[in-house]
Amino acid sequence: MATPRVTPGDAELFKKLSGLCIDTVSGILMGLGFPDQYIAGIPPITLDMKMVGRARTLRYLPIRPDLSEQAKHKYPCGLTHRAVEDSHPGDILVVDSGGCTESGFIGDVIVSRFIVRGGAGIVCDGAIRDYSILRHMGLPIYTKGVHAAVSQRRLIGIGYEMPVVCGGVSVLPGDILLGDDEGVVVIPTHLADQVADRGLATEHRETFLRQVLERGVRPIHEVYPPNEEVLKEYEEYKRQGH
Amino acid sequence: MATPRVTPGDAELFKKLSGLCIDTVSGILMGLGFPDQYIAGIPPITLDMKMVGRARTLRYLPIRPDLSEQAKHKYPCGLTHRAVEDSHPGDILVVDSGGCTESGFIGDVIVSRFIVRGGAGIVCDGAIRDYSILRHMGLPIYTKGVHAAVSQRRLIGIGYEMPVVCGGVSVLPGDILLGDDEGVVVIPTHLADQVADRGLATEHRETFLRQVLERGVRPIHEVYPPNEEVLKEYEEYKRQGH
Amino acid sequence: MATPRVTPGDAELFKKLSGLCIDTVSGILMGLGFPDQYIAGIPPITLDMKMVGRARTLRYLPIRPDLSEQAKHKYPCGLTHRAVEDSHPGDILVVDSGGCTESGFIGDVIVSRFIVRGGAGIVCDGAIRDYSILRHMGLPIYTKGVHAAVSQRRLIGIGYEMPVVCGGVSVLPGDILLGDDEGVVVIPTHLADQVADRGLATEHRETFLRQVLERGVRPIHEVYPPNEEVLKEYEEYKRQGH
Amino acid sequence: MATPRVTPGDAELFKKLSGLCIDTVSGILMGLGFPDQYIAGIPPITLDMKMVGRARTLRYLPIRPDLSEQAKHKYPCGLTHRAVEDSHPGDILVVDSGGCTESGFIGDVIVSRFIVRGGAGIVCDGAIRDYSILRHMGLPIYTKGVHAAVSQRRLIGIGYEMPVVCGGVSVLPGDILLGDDEGVVVIPTHLADQVADRGLATEHRETFLRQVLERGVRPIHEVYPPNEEVLKEYEEYKRQGH
Amino acid sequence: MATPRVTPGDAELFKKLSGLCIDTVSGILMGLGFPDQYIAGIPPITLDMKMVGRARTLRYLPIRPDLSEQAKHKYPCGLTHRAVEDSHPGDILVVDSGGCTESGFIGDVIVSRFIVRGGAGIVCDGAIRDYSILRHMGLPIYTKGVHAAVSQRRLIGIGYEMPVVCGGVSVLPGDILLGDDEGVVVIPTHLADQVADRGLATEHRETFLRQVLERGVRPIHEVYPPNEEVLKEYEEYKRQGH
Amino acid sequence: MATPRVTPGDAELFKKLSGLCIDTVSGILMGLGFPDQYIAGIPPITLDMKMVGRARTLRYLPIRPDLSEQAKHKYPCGLTHRAVEDSHPGDILVVDSGGCTESGFIGDVIVSRFIVRGGAGIVCDGAIRDYSILRHMGLPIYTKGVHAAVSQRRLIGIGYEMPVVCGGVSVLPGDILLGDDEGVVVIPTHLADQVADRGLATEHRETFLRQVLERGVRPIHEVYPPNEEVLKEYEEYKRQGH
Repeated sequence: MATPRVTPGDAELFKKLSGLCIDTVSGILMGLGFPDQYIAGIPPITLDMKMVGRARTLRYLPIRPDLSEQAKHKYPCGLTHRAVEDSHPGDILVVDSGGCTESGFIGDVIVSRFIVRGGAGIVCDGAIRDYSILRHMGLPIYTKGVHAAVSQRRLIGIGYEMPVVCGGVSVLPGDILLGDDEGVVVIPTHLADQVADRGLATEHRETFLRQVLERGVRPIHEVYPPNEEVLKEYEEYKRQGH
Repeated sequence: MATPRVTPGDAELFKKLSGLCIDTVSGILMGLGFPDQYIAGIPPITLDMKMVGRARTLRYLPIRPDLSEQAKHKYPCGLTHRAVEDSHPGDILVVDSGGCTESGFIGDVIVSRFIVRGGAGIVCDGAIRDYSILRHMGLPIYTKGVHAAVSQRRLIGIGYEMPVVCGGVSVLPGDILLGDDEGVVVIPTHLADQVADRGLATEHRETFLRQVLERGVRPIHEVYPPNEEVLKEYEEYKRQGH
Repeated sequence: MATPRVTPGDAELFKKLSGLCIDTVSGILMGLGFPDQYIAGIPPITLDMKMVGRARTLRYLPIRPDLSEQAKHKYPCGLTHRAVEDSHPGDILVVDSGGCTESGFIGDVIVSRFIVRGGAGIVCDGAIRDYSILRHMGLPIYTKGVHAAVSQRRLIGIGYEMPVVCGGVSVLPGDILLGDDEGVVVIPTHLADQVADRGLATEHRETFLRQVLERGVRPIHEVYPPNEEVLKEYEEYKRQGH
Repeated sequence: MATPRVTPGDAELFKKLSGLCIDTVSGILMGLGFPDQYIAGIPPITLDMKMVGRARTLRYLPIRPDLSEQAKHKYPCGLTHRAVEDSHPGDILVVDSGGCTESGFIGDVIVSRFIVRGGAGIVCDGAIRDYSILRHMGLPIYTKGVHAAVSQRRLIGIGYEMPVVCGGVSVLPGDILLGDDEGVVVIPTHLADQVADRGLATEHRETFLRQVLERGVRPIHEVYPPNEEVLKEYEEYKRQGH
Repeated sequence: MATPRVTPGDAELFKKLSGLCIDTVSGILMGLGFPDQYIAGIPPITLDMKMVGRARTLRYLPIRPDLSEQAKHKYPCGLTHRAVEDSHPGDILVVDSGGCTESGFIGDVIVSRFIVRGGAGIVCDGAIRDYSILRHMGLPIYTKGVHAAVSQRRLIGIGYEMPVVCGGVSVLPGDILLGDDEGVVVIPTHLADQVADRGLATEHRETFLRQVLERGVRPIHEVYPPNEEVLKEYEEYKRQGH
Repeated sequence: MATPRVTPGDAELFKKLSGLCIDTVSGILMGLGFPDQYIAGIPPITLDMKMVGRARTLRYLPIRPDLSEQAKHKYPCGLTHRAVEDSHPGDILVVDSGGCTESGFIGDVIVSRFIVRGGAGIVCDGAIRDYSILRHMGLPIYTKGVHAAVSQRRLIGIGYEMPVVCGGVSVLPGDILLGDDEGVVVIPTHLADQVADRGLATEHRETFLRQVLERGVRPIHEVYPPNEEVLKEYEEYKRQGH
């Protein structure tokens, strides 16, 4: 069985990140030279949930008998089973199905095992099954579509823990994913601490700026970005312990 | 006026089916040689509702003056009026508009009559009107889109109770439709009892398997599909009256 | 700063319109020779809200360095800032981005200023940012998509208060917009009073017709459209003070 | 075997029509109250050919075992065979497949029989097979796509000589179709003579107007539409026997 | 009448550019900070033609009666007529129709006048009419689609010589456009000379590199980009007068 | 450098296959349990060419700085260079770019090297550059689109000689590809001889059947599929040495 990749040290990082809006993170990543980290067109199936964890990547290809033979040798119980069983707390399944929504990748039975394993979420560029049940199971799931048919009629799992594409973003195994109502942003591991710290600072400042704006006295161009006067007010605000 | 097609004998069948998830039904139909019975891309307008009933099919074509003349002869009050008035408890309108979402097929006034007639639901591969009202009327409605304009500006009803296509599935008049949050699955009449019984058995077993998984002891490949040991546990579980 | 365009006289008009369903308004506009006033494919981000106000139009084009230079001369703080700051109570931002959903047009900080200015809503044929926050801010927002990246990476604001296209409809500055769960309909100013009055009459009558239908005695073709007998009942109903 | 629908009297009509550009015909039909007669998105597979003839309509639905049984009873050799064998000189097969391009409707063997029968063309809203061969067989074919797989894996022929939709246009059996490099326009039978005569007049005049323009002296607004002076010149031109 | 914008000095520039492949130009523009100058998804209607000239921009919006009134005041004979009549040798019409392909923007009669005026080409993000004729008229035309219906049924010309979007690129009036079989690239005026000179140098070198490769001795990584040895050979090649 | 995979023994196989239409091959593969081997939506850039050879697969993902670093370690000169340089006579590059058409995968300089190496063709599910030149170079190229910008602005080559997806088909390294005007079909190596032999037999028989049909005496249902009488005629035809 795979060793956990979410280490004790991740706890604090994940806690920081889970307080951030994905737009803040996206903006910071752009500033760090990573402008294309938002997974587009793959919304959550339920609102008002945050997702944070590490990517465990899976690649599915269109079925073809000889390819299925190859897959059976590599993953005797199937790739999905393998990935679910390998999972540790904080793992997020990231599915690259080539965008195929003509069958459903995963259903409630397997997901119940994934939850037991501590899985933190699923991001699927295809479709899921059992949407009626999954949306009540408490696991953050992002998917391009839903479909009642089993995935085996269209797809075969053939690649595991390799770079994949999902919603137009390259995802590497171990990447940190942050999700909210708007979708998912992909954070390269080596940038995660930096992103978390800058993100908290940005959101702290934006909270202040919104308060300034809501007082209704200052026009937008004085506040966003803040001019010197507003910056001073912000310094004062921080000194007061906010 | 048309005679009812939902017979007293249907009551029990419909009750059984309404307890099933459409994915279960889809899987059973695939096993019976019907792999393409899920109506894709046509979600419900409200969640947490089940729909079960029999298809009453309607076909609409792009407007054209001489075709409208023909339609007027066949359906003096229009096809939608005709179908609504023919409806009996348990009927579901299935609309094949060629996927046209540039006008809305039906609005709240006509739907209020359909509800009085006992209509069980609507499945439309085009758009509906009055979405703001319809979503509060308690009728299960599945639709590809919404549009504020009346359908007469684009479409004319010309075919009734004939085979149609809806969401990529051929639907025959009298087919049994089951809908939940995930969409709609089309059950051929002659398979319905078999599907209902197998479906109940499948879901009973899957409920048990999920309980096994949730105990967290067994890995997924022992449980789904169940190995001999788990099957024995399941037999014991059934003997205990579950 | 721009002068307000929503005049005191608008209050009554807006109150009338806000009682109407957009389908009613769409039907009346079609009768007046304006068949294409429904903004298609741009749903609200939150349900159960009404939006009514006047269009303030903005046009964005794909970024290009020399075009950005031109834009900076015209709108030193950017077009979005300019429009938000110009806004008066009852203004609705209407964004023509050429349908680009690869970046988010506006986020929560600027929207908080727009709310302070009395903004009545936003209609965007592209994407918005900060969806997780915006959907809790109480402002009606209609958008084609969401995206975490800032709009500046794709778009530059270059046209203001000019005719634009949004969701397939031409929108003129000052047009009156009415939005509900189904979307937005665009009302030319010179027709607004007429539309409001006819709309109230139509909905009053349709409410009555639905009551007739819900009694379950009359078939749909006697009621919708109403035959003479039903019309007489309606006259009586009105005489009774309904 | 079906009786021919292209009558001797059609010869002259077809000759006239084959001299026209489909845009001319489209414009005249719009003037006669038929604004939507152009089959959109279905180009020819070879250029520099004219097609004129009468529609023989076919409808295909997604495969489904019990529907295939029904089809076998109605068309023991299959619908395509039936239609090809019924065909007479001047017939055009018009295929409504619901826009399915995942399999090829017809191949070179059947087409060779259709040519022997005198078939005048094929218009298909799905895909054809054997494109490499068909494009050299001399028959005008308009199709949305090509696909190497046989249609039986996706579609079953179930409707014949009924109103169908093709490229967004309702086509009735017996309609006259005119095709050129730009696509196909559908002419209702009862308007065909009128359309042919007006079309010849329109093109005669436009030829003259182009000659006027090509002289380079008159600006476009004097010529198109022609002012009184140009109209006089045109009368003179006609008097000279052009 | 508008004054010509293609000046005598342009002749040499245009001659240079017409010798270049658009990919070369696209690469050079990317190096100059303009990475998005290729008009995507708008191919030529005929192959083996080069187009070079200056943009004359037109913007069309969806029809709406009151907007049509405004348009009539601004352009009494219509925007297309106005633009054609204003044209001088070397002008290229660039049409922003919001991507509408449901009607044809221009037909053979108007184009014949445009050719007389010296028009150098048309780039249309919608559809054209009279494709059967236009493809034989010798004018380079790039279009997203074809449609037989007149544009007036969908669109009204409302903006002239303003920044527009076409195929995802912002086009300014006076921009230089270069087109070949692959499509069109948009060159800002102030960069044109630089682009032409660098382009000639690039293609001269690439011709040499292809010759080196075609000798079959050197592997690709020595040649493209060239290593020092190959660069020396190239210097020698140039010294020999190539 | 990679060893050649097209062996001397392939010469005869390739010769046989190159005489076949891809539809014939597709039908035979379906009969052998491989129904989905046609690469859909990826047409050739030039007509009247046959392509036959073995797949050399490449996978590209969206650019991302740290992924580009990884790629540089694996393929110091880039994946495209590597694959071209590895190529032997009969190799076909099969590109899986996730369907990205926003940049051009390959241009004329690299292709000239690929031709020198004996490359037999290219199949690309994205876009190519230098279409104007490539279409005159004599190499069969199948591509979803064209784009003037270099691929590096969107994609990075990260996977080589692994299973990929192209046009909805799984392609394995070494698969045999056959292409004609209609597109490309993927033949698993272990089936190739069988496919070639059956294909020749099928086409031989279909040629005969077309001759029978072209005589005009027999209806289609006697000939396709052939009844006993026609089968006898065919046996006779073969005995005569055809």
